[in-house]
Amino acid sequence: METQNIIPENLKLAVLDRIKPSQAERERLLAVQKELVAKVNKAAEQLDAPDVFAKVVGSAARGTWLSGTHDIDVFISFPEETSREELETRGMAIAREIAKDAEHAEDRHAEHPYLNIRFKGFDVDLVPCFRVASACQLKSAVDRTPFHNEFVKARIAGLEDDVLLMKQFMRGGGVYGSELRTRGFSGYLTELLVIRYGSFEKTVRAACTWKPGIKIDIMKHAEIEHEEPLVMVDPTDPKRNVAAALSLDKFCMFIDHCREFLKNPDLNSFFPEAPSAVGDEEILEKMEMRGSGQLAVVFKTPEVVEDVLYPQLYKTEQAAASLLEGSGFSVIKTGVWAGSRQNVIMLELISNTLPNVKKHIGPPVWVPGHAEQFKEKYENAEDVFSGYIEDGKYVFEIRRKYPLAAELLKEQLGQHSLGKHVLKSINQEVEVLENAEILSLKEPGFRVFLRKWL
Amino acid sequence: METQNIIPENLKLAVLDRIKPSQAERERLLAVQKELVAKVNKAAEQLDAPDVFAKVVGSAARGTWLSGTHDIDVFISFPEETSREELETRGMAIAREIAKDAEHAEDRHAEHPYLNIRFKGFDVDLVPCFRVASACQLKSAVDRTPFHNEFVKARIAGLEDDVLLMKQFMRGGGVYGSELRTRGFSGYLTELLVIRYGSFEKTVRAACTWKPGIKIDIMKHAEIEHEEPLVMVDPTDPKRNVAAALSLDKFCMFIDHCREFLKNPDLNSFFPEAPSAVGDEEILEKMEMRGSGQLAVVFKTPEVVEDVLYPQLYKTEQAAASLLEGSGFSVIKTGVWAGSRQNVIMLELISNTLPNVKKHIGPPVWVPGHAEQFKEKYENAEDVFSGYIEDGKYVFEIRRKYPLAAELLKEQLGQHSLGKHVLKSINQEVEVLENAEILSLKEPGFRVFLRKWL
Repeated sequence: METQNIIPENLKLAVLDRIKPSQAERERLLAVQKELVAKVNKAAEQLDAPDVFAKVVGSAARGTWLSGTHDIDVFISFPEETSREELETRGMAIAREIAKDAEHAEDRHAEHPYLNIRFKGFDVDLVPCFRVASACQLKSAVDRTPFHNEFVKARIAGLEDDVLLMKQFMRGGGVYGSELRTRGFSGYLTELLVIRYGSFEKTVRAACTWKPGIKIDIMKHAEIEHEEPLVMVDPTDPKRNVAAALSLDKFCMFIDHCREFLKNPDLNSFFPEAPSAVGDEEILEKMEMRGSGQLAVVFKTPEVVEDVLYPQLYKTEQAAASLLEGSGFSVIKTGVWAGSRQNVIMLELISNTLPNVKKHIGPPVWVPGHAEQFKEKYENAEDVFSGYIEDGKYVFEIRRKYPLAAELLKEQLGQHSLGKHVLKSINQEVEVLENAEILSLKEPGFRVFLRKWL
Repeated sequence: METQNIIPENLKLAVLDRIKPSQAERERLLAVQKELVAKVNKAAEQLDAPDVFAKVVGSAARGTWLSGTHDIDVFISFPEETSREELETRGMAIAREIAKDAEHAEDRHAEHPYLNIRFKGFDVDLVPCFRVASACQLKSAVDRTPFHNEFVKARIAGLEDDVLLMKQFMRGGGVYGSELRTRGFSGYLTELLVIRYGSFEKTVRAACTWKPGIKIDIMKHAEIEHEEPLVMVDPTDPKRNVAAALSLDKFCMFIDHCREFLKNPDLNSFFPEAPSAVGDEEILEKMEMRGSGQLAVVFKTPEVVEDVLYPQLYKTEQAAASLLEGSGFSVIKTGVWAGSRQNVIMLELISNTLPNVKKHIGPPVWVPGHAEQFKEKYENAEDVFSGYIEDGKYVFEIRRKYPLAAELLKEQLGQHSLGKHVLKSINQEVEVLENAEILSLKEPGFRVFLRKWL
């Protein structure tokens, strides 16, 4: 039985043929890497910092990058005793020296500032870091990266193709990338999985039986418990979970993707067909078929990076759903789409409207004070349909404040905690489109999103 | 503070003026009672049963009957050692002897057969019973009644007016009557309450602070625990709760009625205005204002007594609500109306329709077997909109079987456990009217019910 499911060798070759960098691509990358290292070291010397030198890290340094990606990470490594301030000023000074020869340069900021440049067609991050003794003694999150690099480099020889296959397979399943938009698998996590299980195929097979709470501890040195669905103890830091950013749903999507693939191993699992944009007529037809209420909350995209934007969008998505549920609406599902100009929170409801009458259940009749106050408040109030006793409690049928979901969102969403930038944008201007009104959103990216939604 | 709320004497007098039997009414009742007792005793003698004799029980025997009610209960009392069969044959033979002079006679059946006759304008029950030594040794449920009679008669002197006031006050609050239609306070329970608290007013005051679980044990001889909201230990039987039939809501309605009355003691609490029938135009207007979904399940009234019919109607009301909720509908409230020709189960819903799309949530992705079976079942099924993973579970958007509440009720209600007679009637013919269609129900009694409903 086991052997029936073996992944065909020619399938793997066909995939590798499309994703493995060619000899020329490899040589070109190595040349550019070498040039950047030389430039950093020279700049360090010129700036009178001879104990500062360059280190190439990331997939480019380990031979596990996918053809067509052009990312190079150059770390500018300072002695551990360097002050934080000095690291930042001198590190950025060195980086700016390199940037003089770049096509484009942009200051970025994680825990520390770093420089992102476009250099000979490559997307290069120039990142100042401390040269600490071990990953557990790091002074800044980026200090860890060189240790990851060393660990993987020492064990990856012969598994590079398996890593490439796995990365592309995860892309095909929509679970690759640990940024906050995706909350999937990082490159480092993928490499560790392949190292742990020994091959692409063995990893796929193993994942089919994963359950939340699974723990992989290659160095057998875990020091603390983690709550995340997958725990991959960092081989370079016993306290850290490499898979901390992986969400439960991406974890499950990967399990599902592995199962489907073993049932039917084909190219499509690596290179799924790109969904197309959906047209007006089809949207109307599908909305009619579903018969539900569709709402689109539309606002301008705040000018922040994706790792700042997406958590706020997800928070807004949750807040909108809670607001609706709290007012009696039934939410079927929610979604987020972010374009360069506009953001959309999509909501599907059992219905966009509720009756005017709302059943308001009070305290039990026998509770002293409370019960009488409740009755007095409502029995002669305006907009009360009627009152009675049910299951021992006073019940009044009152007029619902928001029988229309769109009105509720328009008036109340901006009062909630949505994250700074999204909140500001929504409070400047927000539109809530209902059903056919959603046709006014024409962006092709949104229409691709809608195809999956409907 | 206490004295401010004292019930005005003239209010009580005004009520008594309308409900207390006049001297003439009283004399007439006593005369008829006497005549019936003589007839029973004579018939017993003629049938060679000299140890059988008549006993008048009930409110007529204790001077606590409301003017205008013409009920007399005559118990035909047999020695304890009589066999059940003999009691029935000889008891009914004696009763039939009396019935010869009656305007009308009808066999009825509780635990034993008894005879109901119309005699000189009075509604008379002739009930054979055993003369047991105490109420705890009864051979049949009716054997208890003479003991109740003795207990009350010995203590009610001077409190008769208070009992009359309380009975009428309970009528005004819609809580008088222990039959299964009402599930309120019985006459005996009312008498015991007045005996326990000492007057009408003291009972009203006490009830304002009642909570479910309150226990009154006049003889301090309770032997077992009861679950009902009010426990009135039977002074003649330590195991029995006289208030066993009282529902939580009628218990609470009485508390509420007492509180309102003390705040504003007026005739209206005893004699509320009779609600009028609501007209077509007003029905439409109110339905429009409420904006909800209204459903009326209509079927022929089965030919059974109310104590058999009402439990079945209440069961049907519950079953209809469960059926709707189980299929995704949201029920606001339910109600029952029973006329001589038709019965109606009324249901108010958030909406009478639901979207075609229905979210069907499956097992967690990682559950072996289950998860894969679920996915396989739905992923290629007809009428599936889409599938995805949410909160770690497979979710499929499938086509709802019953998007219309009326259709669901029409097709499925008759499959449920509704009680024999109602089930039969519904399976013969049932109509489910929606919103304005309900106007076709013209019975004045139903239209009175509808005024309160809307």
